[in-house]
Amino acid sequence: MNLTPSLARLVEQLGRLPGIGEKTATRLAMFILNADREYAEALAEAVWAVKAETTLCQECFGLAEGERCAICLDPKRNDEAICVVEEPADLIALEKVHEYRGRYHVLHGVLSPLDGIGPEELKIAPLLERLRRGAAQEVIIATNPTTEGEATALYLAKVIKPLGLRVSRIARGIPMGGDVEYTDVVTLGRALEGRREM
Amino acid sequence: MNLTPSLARLVEQLGRLPGIGEKTATRLAMFILNADREYAEALAEAVWAVKAETTLCQECFGLAEGERCAICLDPKRNDEAICVVEEPADLIALEKVHEYRGRYHVLHGVLSPLDGIGPEELKIAPLLERLRRGAAQEVIIATNPTTEGEATALYLAKVIKPLGLRVSRIARGIPMGGDVEYTDVVTLGRALEGRREM
Repeated sequence: MNLTPSLARLVEQLGRLPGIGEKTATRLAMFILNADREYAEALAEAVWAVKAETTLCQECFGLAEGERCAICLDPKRNDEAICVVEEPADLIALEKVHEYRGRYHVLHGVLSPLDGIGPEELKIAPLLERLRRGAAQEVIIATNPTTEGEATALYLAKVIKPLGLRVSRIARGIPMGGDVEYTDVVTLGRALEGRREM
Repeated sequence: MNLTPSLARLVEQLGRLPGIGEKTATRLAMFILNADREYAEALAEAVWAVKAETTLCQECFGLAEGERCAICLDPKRNDEAICVVEEPADLIALEKVHEYRGRYHVLHGVLSPLDGIGPEELKIAPLLERLRRGAAQEVIIATNPTTEGEATALYLAKVIKPLGLRVSRIARGIPMGGDVEYTDVVTLGRALEGRREM
């Protein structure tokens, strides 16, 4: 390939992004090269700043800039519910729904004994501490419906229930637009189990 | 959306890249955030450097770092042929084929009278100058097979032929893996016209 050194470097770095192959990386690099200087500078600054400025909220361990995230700082959010998610990206996805007005807690992973991830590796102790001192009445467990996510949910239910709180799990079933015929048996099982009267 | 300011800024900037929607931009931004600091710094540096360090070769107007590009500086390239392309990206695509060992000339556009792009707006005068003083015997016109690309090719042939040089045009036809049934009539016409004895 006849790329200049700086272009080759950019293609290489862009190619490390998920889902970006060499062809796309080259196209994006050419776009950046052809864009005005302001754009390249704004993009470079944004890439740099996201690492430099992002912190973890000391309350919920979601993404923040500073000690507390916007949700924990928001007095209008409902203190009675805490939704537990695996990663900050899950929190962002749930916020897009504009349904839930409670608080969050980010575990930063799931229990995975084979990978040496036990409860101590996750933000579980700070969650229990929060639940003990806080106003929460319900904990909604929104870990992924995977083996590890389910095991983590069961573990959390076991340690949270003794605190006298309601523990719920987000529904698992056929996604909207899905197809009964092509849905796997585990999902179909959960969908039947979680059926509601109409 | 509950993104931190720096994350929101990164999603916005990534979302301006071609073919990157908000969902993909968010995924890429989260990847950059979760990647190690070295990666974010290398990516930011590469984005910045590609604008700061890339110049146009003063000979062929391809991408360079400095006065001359690697191809123009390469003594092993064949001086007898010059391949004319619209944009630097076309040169890069042709180089990937590893077939052509001649030189290049980048027009930086195509003739487009409606957009006010005449021969003076393209690097045509420097091409003619190069052809007059240089050792080229053949000019291969590799502009795109679009209305403007074809018009530009015809124009170039008209002004280059009087210099006593051979002018050729890259073949237009059905792409490999294409389908005769679904090929447009203009392409089919060109494919028939450009047929070769087997």
